Amino acid sequence: MKQLLQVEIPIKVRFSDTDAMGVVWHGNYLRFFEDAREAFGIKYGLTYLDVYHRGYFTPIVKSSVEHKSPINYGEEVVAIAKFHPTPSAKIMFDFDILNKTTGKLSARGHTTQVFLSVVEREMELVKPPFYIEWEKSIGIKH
Amino acid sequence: MKQLLQVEIPIKVRFSDTDAMGVVWHGNYLRFFEDAREAFGIKYGLTYLDVYHRGYFTPIVKSSVEHKSPINYGEEVVAIAKFHPTPSAKIMFDFDILNKTTGKLSARGHTTQVFLSVVEREMELVKPPFYIEWEKSIGIKH
Amino acid sequence: MKQLLQVEIPIKVRFSDTDAMGVVWHGNYLRFFEDAREAFGIKYGLTYLDVYHRGYFTPIVKSSVEHKSPINYGEEVVAIAKFHPTPSAKIMFDFDILNKTTGKLSARGHTTQVFLSVVEREMELVKPPFYIEWEKSIGIKH
Amino acid sequence: MKQLLQVEIPIKVRFSDTDAMGVVWHGNYLRFFEDAREAFGIKYGLTYLDVYHRGYFTPIVKSSVEHKSPINYGEEVVAIAKFHPTPSAKIMFDFDILNKTTGKLSARGHTTQVFLSVVEREMELVKPPFYIEWEKSIGIKH
Repeated sequence: MKQLLQVEIPIKVRFSDTDAMGVVWHGNYLRFFEDAREAFGIKYGLTYLDVYHRGYFTPIVKSSVEHKSPINYGEEVVAIAKFHPTPSAKIMFDFDILNKTTGKLSARGHTTQVFLSVVEREMELVKPPFYIEWEKSIGIKH
Repeated sequence: MKQLLQVEIPIKVRFSDTDAMGVVWHGNYLRFFEDAREAFGIKYGLTYLDVYHRGYFTPIVKSSVEHKSPINYGEEVVAIAKFHPTPSAKIMFDFDILNKTTGKLSARGHTTQVFLSVVEREMELVKPPFYIEWEKSIGIKH
Repeated sequence: MKQLLQVEIPIKVRFSDTDAMGVVWHGNYLRFFEDAREAFGIKYGLTYLDVYHRGYFTPIVKSSVEHKSPINYGEEVVAIAKFHPTPSAKIMFDFDILNKTTGKLSARGHTTQVFLSVVEREMELVKPPFYIEWEKSIGIKH
Repeated sequence: MKQLLQVEIPIKVRFSDTDAMGVVWHGNYLRFFEDAREAFGIKYGLTYLDVYHRGYFTPIVKSSVEHKSPINYGEEVVAIAKFHPTPSAKIMFDFDILNKTTGKLSARGHTTQVFLSVVEREMELVKPPFYIEWEKSIGIKH
């Protein structure tokens, strides 16, 4: 069974997030993903700082966004981050951005992160022990 | 034959583009793509304003980035936008971000845009006449 | 008596808000001010959209920030917007950014906005009638 | 005599710099100031990295902007940074943002930086020796 681990958070759309087309600039969706990823980390014990204190950065190596419908300033938006289990030494998330005002899916996306040791700044080829523990603690089996 | 239409531009990495890992924040690569796309538009007559004056917006409906190596503040960077011909009513570009200081490929990416009429804000299902003319003018045949 | 109209909101510090010094980039404080101003608008009926629907934009014509102590990623931050009454055709706010984690004042700031008619895009030299009504409704007398 | 040390640089206005009013979002002017400050550093030997390698950060402790006229996407813009000599342990600049397309002054501004030792992260109360040397080298006397 594929575990369903996810969080949903409200997104505060700033006026400065919009562009001259009057809608949220596409690049800002990566910030919404970031917010959702961090909320996931707070809920499940895997924030940027949790990971950093274990000796790792987890930089994004891959991101993609598919835009389905725009967001105007003042609309109510939520972001959902869904943990995407993988046997490789990576952290993967899928995202949905929902426009509650229009009732439409605004965007879908994905990010992949790797483990980089803070000291050597080298990429880990296998999952770090702390991360294997963390996966176990939240019920992920491979 | 697939035509090779591309531009290369220097990228000014701002201090504010970096994050607490000391490198350029991943979301900013979409700004570099935007700069390269716009430089392509200036070279080949397809800027945001050219298109707008023909009655269209061309919002991004898809974007993806693969990160290969980081960029530190102060490093010399160039962005290359390569026009990616397609028979569908879309504008596609592939991008390379090169770190000249390290000699490494920093990132690869892709964006897809559609045609949206400024007045109705509806997506065009076929290429607008002005765009077919433009493709002809730069030697693209399908 | 000078009326005390203010709101306090939590600020979500994004990882992308930090720079290579490891702290929140100074320009991002203007986004925090924006968030606080908008929260003030929601509380007192003067949001960007409320004003827009009355036929006005209220662009910033002046802003200033004094930085007292930095904010690190992960710290708890609040922004306070204090309405600053003025007899001139302007909207003025003073801001405090408090770092709750360190217990220190992080920054102080100020913004001044003017009234611009959406249609003519001309600056109003006197307060628009709707704004005079609004001031009365919240108890401001000059 | 007050020395006149300044640089002028072209500013690339990105589409993502605009907001839903169709003009450059006010907070982005601090990025233009940053670009001009860094160009000044390149011209006169005082870049972020020059200073960092001498053991200092120079964070912004004060910034202000006065907006005179807006910038639309596609307009030609230049930023001028003028070094503002001061006897205190601070680096001060005044800025002009000129809209060449409209021929109007778009904004005026100011930033003040202090010296922070990289190691102790403490503010210097007197000018560091390297900075006194630098001031002499460019002809500034107090």
